[in-house]
Amino acid sequence: MNTSTKPRVVIVGAGFGGLSAAKALKHAPVDITIVDRQNYHLFQPLLYQVATASLSPAEIAQPIRSILRYQKNVRVLLDEVTGVDAAAKTVRTAGGHALSYDHLIIATGARHSYFGKDSWEAFAPGIKSVDDATRVRAMILLAFERAEVETDAAKREALLTFTIVGGGPTGVEMAGAIAELARRSIVTDFRTIEPSSSRILLIEAGPRLLPSFPEDLSQEAKRALEAMGVEVTLGAAVTDISADGVMLGPTPIATKTVMWAAGVRASPAGEWLKVPCDRAGRVIVGHDFAVPGMSEVYVIGDTAAFTSEDGRILPSVAPAAKQAGLYAGRLIAAHAMGRTLPDAFRYADYGNLATIGHSKAVVDFGFARLKGLIAWVLWSVVHVYFLIGFRNRFFVATGWAWSYLTYKRGVRLITGGGTGTRSPE
Amino acid sequence: MNTSTKPRVVIVGAGFGGLSAAKALKHAPVDITIVDRQNYHLFQPLLYQVATASLSPAEIAQPIRSILRYQKNVRVLLDEVTGVDAAAKTVRTAGGHALSYDHLIIATGARHSYFGKDSWEAFAPGIKSVDDATRVRAMILLAFERAEVETDAAKREALLTFTIVGGGPTGVEMAGAIAELARRSIVTDFRTIEPSSSRILLIEAGPRLLPSFPEDLSQEAKRALEAMGVEVTLGAAVTDISADGVMLGPTPIATKTVMWAAGVRASPAGEWLKVPCDRAGRVIVGHDFAVPGMSEVYVIGDTAAFTSEDGRILPSVAPAAKQAGLYAGRLIAAHAMGRTLPDAFRYADYGNLATIGHSKAVVDFGFARLKGLIAWVLWSVVHVYFLIGFRNRFFVATGWAWSYLTYKRGVRLITGGGTGTRSPE
Repeated sequence: MNTSTKPRVVIVGAGFGGLSAAKALKHAPVDITIVDRQNYHLFQPLLYQVATASLSPAEIAQPIRSILRYQKNVRVLLDEVTGVDAAAKTVRTAGGHALSYDHLIIATGARHSYFGKDSWEAFAPGIKSVDDATRVRAMILLAFERAEVETDAAKREALLTFTIVGGGPTGVEMAGAIAELARRSIVTDFRTIEPSSSRILLIEAGPRLLPSFPEDLSQEAKRALEAMGVEVTLGAAVTDISADGVMLGPTPIATKTVMWAAGVRASPAGEWLKVPCDRAGRVIVGHDFAVPGMSEVYVIGDTAAFTSEDGRILPSVAPAAKQAGLYAGRLIAAHAMGRTLPDAFRYADYGNLATIGHSKAVVDFGFARLKGLIAWVLWSVVHVYFLIGFRNRFFVATGWAWSYLTYKRGVRLITGGGTGTRSPE
Repeated sequence: MNTSTKPRVVIVGAGFGGLSAAKALKHAPVDITIVDRQNYHLFQPLLYQVATASLSPAEIAQPIRSILRYQKNVRVLLDEVTGVDAAAKTVRTAGGHALSYDHLIIATGARHSYFGKDSWEAFAPGIKSVDDATRVRAMILLAFERAEVETDAAKREALLTFTIVGGGPTGVEMAGAIAELARRSIVTDFRTIEPSSSRILLIEAGPRLLPSFPEDLSQEAKRALEAMGVEVTLGAAVTDISADGVMLGPTPIATKTVMWAAGVRASPAGEWLKVPCDRAGRVIVGHDFAVPGMSEVYVIGDTAAFTSEDGRILPSVAPAAKQAGLYAGRLIAAHAMGRTLPDAFRYADYGNLATIGHSKAVVDFGFARLKGLIAWVLWSVVHVYFLIGFRNRFFVATGWAWSYLTYKRGVRLITGGGTGTRSPE
């Protein structure tokens, strides 16, 4: 279908990195194909709020076609990439397409990883996609439903014990959100159980929560979570996960609802390209995000291991992926238009945010650190601002205001797979 | 767990009928258990808007526990009823419960029915549950995605032909909503296809659309749909449905996306009770909704075939189910409190509404008939008013206002079962 002689750019993945690369090429004389296996761009930093029944999927997801509807040099393809033929400069898809490229940008993100213990996934799902999040939401809500009819006290206690493995931002945010759900949102809804008596355990193998934050904010997060009744365990690794619970070293914990926020592994781009990766499966890229020896292939975002010229490692956060996408897009645009290449990539670090719960968050600007209500307000404003699409911004903002005032969770739906009554384990 | 001597009331189904029965018993000295296989009450009249990407499931669904949180004589049980032992006065559930009752209210609604052609369901799903609606939504959106990459013109045309079987309110509303989606909402989103060239077929076996409305409103609906580009076929029955399309009598129509809005069949309450039913499987009840010979068992809503003392048949609409629930609840309350029974049931018919599309609807008040914009505004006000929960009302109202002004569909998510690229048929 491509009869023009313009350079062909294929972008794999319409996350933060891929979308910003496409936008950077808006005025470049190129033909872009952006491929994603979902039809929507997902605002992943708020996915835990879908998993904890505060937001609807549609409030944090936007059709890729809608976002790019007026950028006429882009075609959107709903398909799953299965491999890359770097010699023939072709991307293969599950739908049977072979997409030829002059420039390729791979921005396929990461999945959660169980450090080789893949059997744990069945008992401790992670949250990376909308379907993950609605599955975890059903799992959490069903635990309360089952506890309500459970007559055995020990089993009831195991159903009301929620365990989050991993104390990074996602783990901290999940723990806080579940604590609020149990202690505030649904507290009057049951007749037999007291949801507020639920135990919420947050387990981190390292010495502190939020390891990417300054130490005093880690301590603030721990203090705030404990004030909400979350039991935080540091320096202890989970050694097994089964249908009955987790092993914390030698200690068994009876817990029916376990969520995984401990590790991620990059998508298989390294295998597609057959190039060196780091231990997390991320492709080791040059200072311009190009794959060494393949100057026409860029890998960005959570799929790439990038070290800047001054030796700084790019973090796995949305702003880093966006800036990388912008940079790779500008490089390609400069090539296509015969212009001077941009200066070396420099990451503009605007800070680091994590929310803990109702009016509690931590923010690290580097030069300043915030906590408590002001950090939470800032967190809210930043997240709403960066949500794509006016409707989403408006609805999320008003939804949050409503939840903030009432503690109500409007999205407590157990969907997918019918009633949930047929799969008691 | 029930140690009191209060009469035990079991309500099966938390739809319009079951919920209003529970509420009517709010101040009665009874112990109520309401059982539903979903954890939410669904505002079914707007489900077609979930299927056509206008509303999120959470905007029309509310947790049953939330609705009844302050009514302390009600327990909510998430479980699926599998049978009734009328002699032992016990309800059995899939979760292994045996619920004893002194009074039983069955309000389990209806499923779509294929008149014995159950194989059609795989190709022509109906819309009765949230999972049905998100499945149909994915089916509609995937048809456009597949057409965009289809190189064979005939196959592309089949993908862009949408067929709705059944010209009642649901069929009319679906046809209008798909026409707007194709011709307005996504018209700039594709590069190869023209979504606005889609064919939308509405097939009704009877002589007119909206058979429960006055004839002039049926004609108005047909005229309005045709003005939106919907091809309406009356008096022609679908004789087969397969993966390739439908047979309209002897004529094959190549259409890849078929939706069923033609027939419903009551839930199996009649089989549970082993009592006479009408042809649609509805239990034939007395003038007080009690099952003949079982004065302690009431069947209401779409599960019941009710004829009033003056010979009028109760329609299968939400207000009728609500009024029946209220009546059955009041009867039981009067028994429990030793009060005079209420007068015979009289259905208060406030009119009949159906929306056709952007600012078009038909309303029949009996004494007056409305159409066009004023009918649409009235339809919107009535539907928002009856949505349960302030948050839902507010969000649906503002969402509609937003969609009305922009024609945007914010909920165009293909979810469930991953990418959709692995199941090309």
